[in-house]
This record gives sequence, C-alpha cells and structure tokens, in this order.
Amino acid sequence: MSDGRAAGAAADPSGPRVVALGGGHGLYASLSALRRVTDRLCAVVTVADDGGSSGRLRRELGVLPPGDLRMALAALCGDDEWGRTWRDVVQHRFRSEGALHEHAVGNLLIVALWELLGAQALTGGGLADGAGAPVTDPTVAGLDWVGRLLGAHGRVLPMASVPLDIVAQVRGADPAAPDAVTEVKGQVACAKTPGKVLSVSLVPSDPPACPEAVRAVEEADWVVFGPGSWFTSVLPHLKVPELARALTETKARRIVALNLAPQPGETDDFSPQTHLEVLQDHAPDLRVDVVVADRGVVDDPAALDKAVQDLGGRLLLADVAADDGSPRHDPARLAQAFVKIFRE
Amino acid sequence: MSDGRAAGAAADPSGPRVVALGGGHGLYASLSALRRVTDRLCAVVTVADDGGSSGRLRRELGVLPPGDLRMALAALCGDDEWGRTWRDVVQHRFRSEGALHEHAVGNLLIVALWELLGAQALTGGGLADGAGAPVTDPTVAGLDWVGRLLGAHGRVLPMASVPLDIVAQVRGADPAAPDAVTEVKGQVACAKTPGKVLSVSLVPSDPPACPEAVRAVEEADWVVFGPGSWFTSVLPHLKVPELARALTETKARRIVALNLAPQPGETDDFSPQTHLEVLQDHAPDLRVDVVVADRGVVDDPAALDKAVQDLGGRLLLADVAADDGSPRHDPARLAQAFVKIFRE
Repeated sequence: MSDGRAAGAAADPSGPRVVALGGGHGLYASLSALRRVTDRLCAVVTVADDGGSSGRLRRELGVLPPGDLRMALAALCGDDEWGRTWRDVVQHRFRSEGALHEHAVGNLLIVALWELLGAQALTGGGLADGAGAPVTDPTVAGLDWVGRLLGAHGRVLPMASVPLDIVAQVRGADPAAPDAVTEVKGQVACAKTPGKVLSVSLVPSDPPACPEAVRAVEEADWVVFGPGSWFTSVLPHLKVPELARALTETKARRIVALNLAPQPGETDDFSPQTHLEVLQDHAPDLRVDVVVADRGVVDDPAALDKAVQDLGGRLLLADVAADDGSPRHDPARLAQAFVKIFRE
Repeated sequence: MSDGRAAGAAADPSGPRVVALGGGHGLYASLSALRRVTDRLCAVVTVADDGGSSGRLRRELGVLPPGDLRMALAALCGDDEWGRTWRDVVQHRFRSEGALHEHAVGNLLIVALWELLGAQALTGGGLADGAGAPVTDPTVAGLDWVGRLLGAHGRVLPMASVPLDIVAQVRGADPAAPDAVTEVKGQVACAKTPGKVLSVSLVPSDPPACPEAVRAVEEADWVVFGPGSWFTSVLPHLKVPELARALTETKARRIVALNLAPQPGETDDFSPQTHLEVLQDHAPDLRVDVVVADRGVVDDPAALDKAVQDLGGRLLLADVAADDGSPRHDPARLAQAFVKIFRE
C-alpha cells in the first residue's frame, strides 16, 4: 500500500528552505510550482477572508477563516491516489438549497481539528504536529494534521493567530466623487468596490503573528511574494508587525513573482512597476533580490528592469504563463524559473 | 512513523468472519468488543435515521443518513494516535447558534466522499475501495475510504442502498385511547411516541439491499444481532428482503446479544424473552444459535433458557455489563463472551 503520509514527512528533505507568502489562487500557483523544486516548503497564508464558506465559518464559530489555508494544503497534496483523493475531498463543496451550500469540506475539517485540539490544549493534553513533534498552538497542530492527511509536500501556516479584516483606502469608490478617498472594510468589499485601491491596513492593526511563521521566515533561504491578489493576498503579510520585521530582517533572499494580468477592482491599469511601487509603499525597508515576470505580458522591459534595480534586485523575464491564454501560471514553467533563480 | 492505515488492511487477517448488525450506540458496543476478537469484522448498519445531523443531511442533500455508519467506523478506528485522532475528528460535533450546530464532522466527510465518488462514477472513473480493489458502488467506496482514514479494524456497510423510513405499529400512542393501534412513521417519531411498539416495517417496503452486505452475511462464520434499540436498530435489517433472506439462509451461526435495560418508549416492560419473541415475529424462519445476556439483569434465567431453546439455541449468561452501573456493555467483558462462544 502506498503511503501518502510518508511523502509529507520525508526523512531527508532536500532543496532550499522556501517560504511562500500569499493566499487563494495565486498562492496555489506558486506552491504548485515550488513543490516541484524543494521538499522544504512552507506557505504563510493570509487570514483576512470574510466571504463565502470562510466568512460564514468565522462568523458562526469565531475561528480563523480557513479557506486560503485549505487551498494551500490542497496545492501541496501527495502525488499518489491517497493524496489526490483527500485533496479532492477537502476541495469538495456541497451544493444544495440549504445550510451547507458552498461550504468546502476541508474548511469544516480544519475548523473541527482546531476545536478538537483547542479543547485538548485547554484540558492540558499535549499537542503534536502530526509527526509527533510538540506544538503549542492548536491552530498550527490542526493544519499539520490536515497536511499529514494529504501527505503534503510542505507546511501551511497562518500569517497571524487571530482573524483579520482588511481596510483599504480607495479613491473613487463613489463614482459621483471620483477623486475622494474613502475607507472600505473587509476583503469582499475591497474586491467589489469600484475605484482604485491606494493602500491596505489591518484590523486589528497590531495582530500577533503566528510564531512558527516568523521562525520559518527567519530560517528560510528564499522568501516568495506573489503571485496573487496584490492588496488582499500579498501585501497584508507586511502589515503584521512581527512578520514584517522578520521579512525585512531575514537573511533569506526575496523573490517577487508578478501577476500575469491586472485584477479588476484592485489593480486595474497597474503596470508591473506599479505593483513594485505599491509593495515598497507598504514596506519601505524591504529589499527585493529577484523579480520574476512573464516575458509576454511586460510591455516595457527596460522600465521594469530599472524599477527592479531601484529596489536593489534583478529582473528575470521568463515564459511562465500557461499556453491556454488564461492569466494563469504554468506550474512546470514557473518551477523552471524558480530553479534558475535558486541556482544562480 | 506509525501507520494507522496499515492496521486496517492487515495482510494476514485472523479470527472468524463476523458480521455485526445494528446501529447507534448498541452497534458501537458490539463492535468495540468484536474488534478485540477478530480482524475479519463487518458491520451492517441501519440507514433509517431521520433525526439530528443525519436527518438534516438526508433532507438537504438526498443522501443515506450517515450517522450510524460514522459511529460504526469510529468504533473500529486504529489503536494508534493516528486512528484515535481521526476518530475524534469524525465524532466531533460543531456547537453554535448557526447552521452547523450539531453536525458531526464525520457525517459531512462521508457525504462528501459519496458525492465526489458518485460524480466520478457517473463520468466513468473507476472506483476503488481505498485498498485498491474495484468497487462499483460509490456508497461502499466512500465508507471504505473513511475506514482507511481511520485505520479501521473491519468494514462498515449500509444495510440498504437507499434511505429508509421506519414505520411502527404502536398501541397506546394516544394516551386517550390506550388500546388503539396506530402507525407512527420515522425513527425520531417512533422513539418519542408513548405507548408500546408492536412491530416495525420499512418504507419503501422492498428496498434494495447493499450487495456487499448480503455477500458478507453469506460468507460469514458468525452473525451478531444487537445489542441496540430493538425496533429501530436491530429488527429493521430483517425487513430488507434480500438481507433477511441471506440472514436466514447463511451457514453462519447467529448470536443475539440482549440489551442491559429496556429502552424508554420502545421496550418498556420487555423481558429478555419478549425481545426474542419480537425478533421471531419479525423473522419467523430465523434460527438463533446463541443468546448472550448479562447475568445481573436476567430475573428469570430458567424462563429465558426455555425461550432460547425454543428458538433452537443455547443461552450464555455472562458478566458483560460495565461496572459503573450504567446500562452499558463493558467491551472487554463482552469480548470475552464472544471468545467463549466462538471457541465452543
């Protein structure tokens, strides 16, 4: 019998230690590529979603929104039938006219483990990470258990230990006053509001970072920002103070993987350079070592090259988009780009 | 790393082939005992529940009520940390003021696998039983996958392939007319209605049996009825025609494990003999080889002994109750009784 769990706990992991930051489909893309390159992979995931299944769970049960965490775990599932089947189960959504409609099974499973291990921790029971190592935080222990179920090629951690809300400064949210800057609260509202997002902050503004995530960043060889929803998945990590400090001070080299297309309502009309400017606005002390962009979507390579050099880094133009014309990274091609970066 | 899954798929299973029939807490008790005695264990479980989490799921999603199946799987979980943790997860219930209140996580997991594997079967994908053997029925395949997750010491199957409703003939359901016999539909209603249950039948009255359950009964060395809610968990199996035929015709020897206490609303004032009479009323051709009863709760051993002999069997009086005074079987003591029966 093949053993999905063994795949997730290789005795002799190889490859550089990589931390991937983000959420949602963007992080799924970077993880789908990075899992081909290294066994020492850690995803640090945003916990500010307030929509869909995640939003309902955080409101009904007072938990971290699990959806982005679930999707990252699914991206890391084992390669065998065991890993693929449990990936499909955790990604499965109920469809009905009733109360369960749209709930993702993995979200329910993650929350159940948090409740169960949280209750065990309160009653003094020791927690383990699924591979037997002690863990103090039920949130981390629960995610490790789901990772073990999936035979995951790496670890998935939340960026903060409490549920967060994103607050965006938006110009032109009201079409009648196109120059006015207003505050929009909540990830769903930010994504839906017309106008131009200028910056994001978090509520609470000084959330506790997940200690394991901070440690992973401190001990990493490489940290990868993006691709993904720039304001709601990539930048929020820089607004968690302890995590931002670790990201700025770590000896790891920093990679920014740019998106293939602007995101409606968030980054309309943003050039690749604008993405980098916004990143720097949110973390002025952050040095960037490498920026990866798809050759086919960069209109002005010289301007982007200059913007990257201004950040202290170098630009890698590569063919990383999928062939089907969708604004989607091809995992194998993005993996090749990472291999090239890690080797240079 | 210990491997919970391997425990559930021992290469060289030993012990007699035993099929345990029932549902709910009674079946949990017989399985908790039988798992200590044999590796070749199969539970055949009632699918007529219409209350709680199971009832809501069958109404919202049109599936078999999964709760009794989940509890049987939990009873068979692996002995290591892996098996116990996933058992606790599948048994975990959400508590809230909202839509998820009281849903058991394992119920949601089982239903998700049914939906997922059912969709795969419709699109022509081959199903496997979790150990790689082909299975045609997504219901069985889904349960096998949860069994594999738990490292289950045996297999859990539904008694029928469609959701069922129990219809009870009840005398005195209306306290104003204590002698009138009325029909009460639904497991919850049967359990709640005052009066004396006389018999039960099923709607639909000729449901398709689960073919794997029929085969398990045909190939068994022993079949165990009870303990459990007599009318709603033990007798319904005899009302599924193909299963009743297999139970009557199998060369397996048949054991009846009697309850430790009457069940309010179902079997008030029932003596052990009355339980056997009711069993025979529901399946006149069923031969019984051994009846196990707790020594401490049988008021008239001679009368019970005679009733058992009239069925063609023999009586085993043993100490099988727990010490705490609850009407609960002690798993180790009940296991000892089974060992004694299997050896004689």
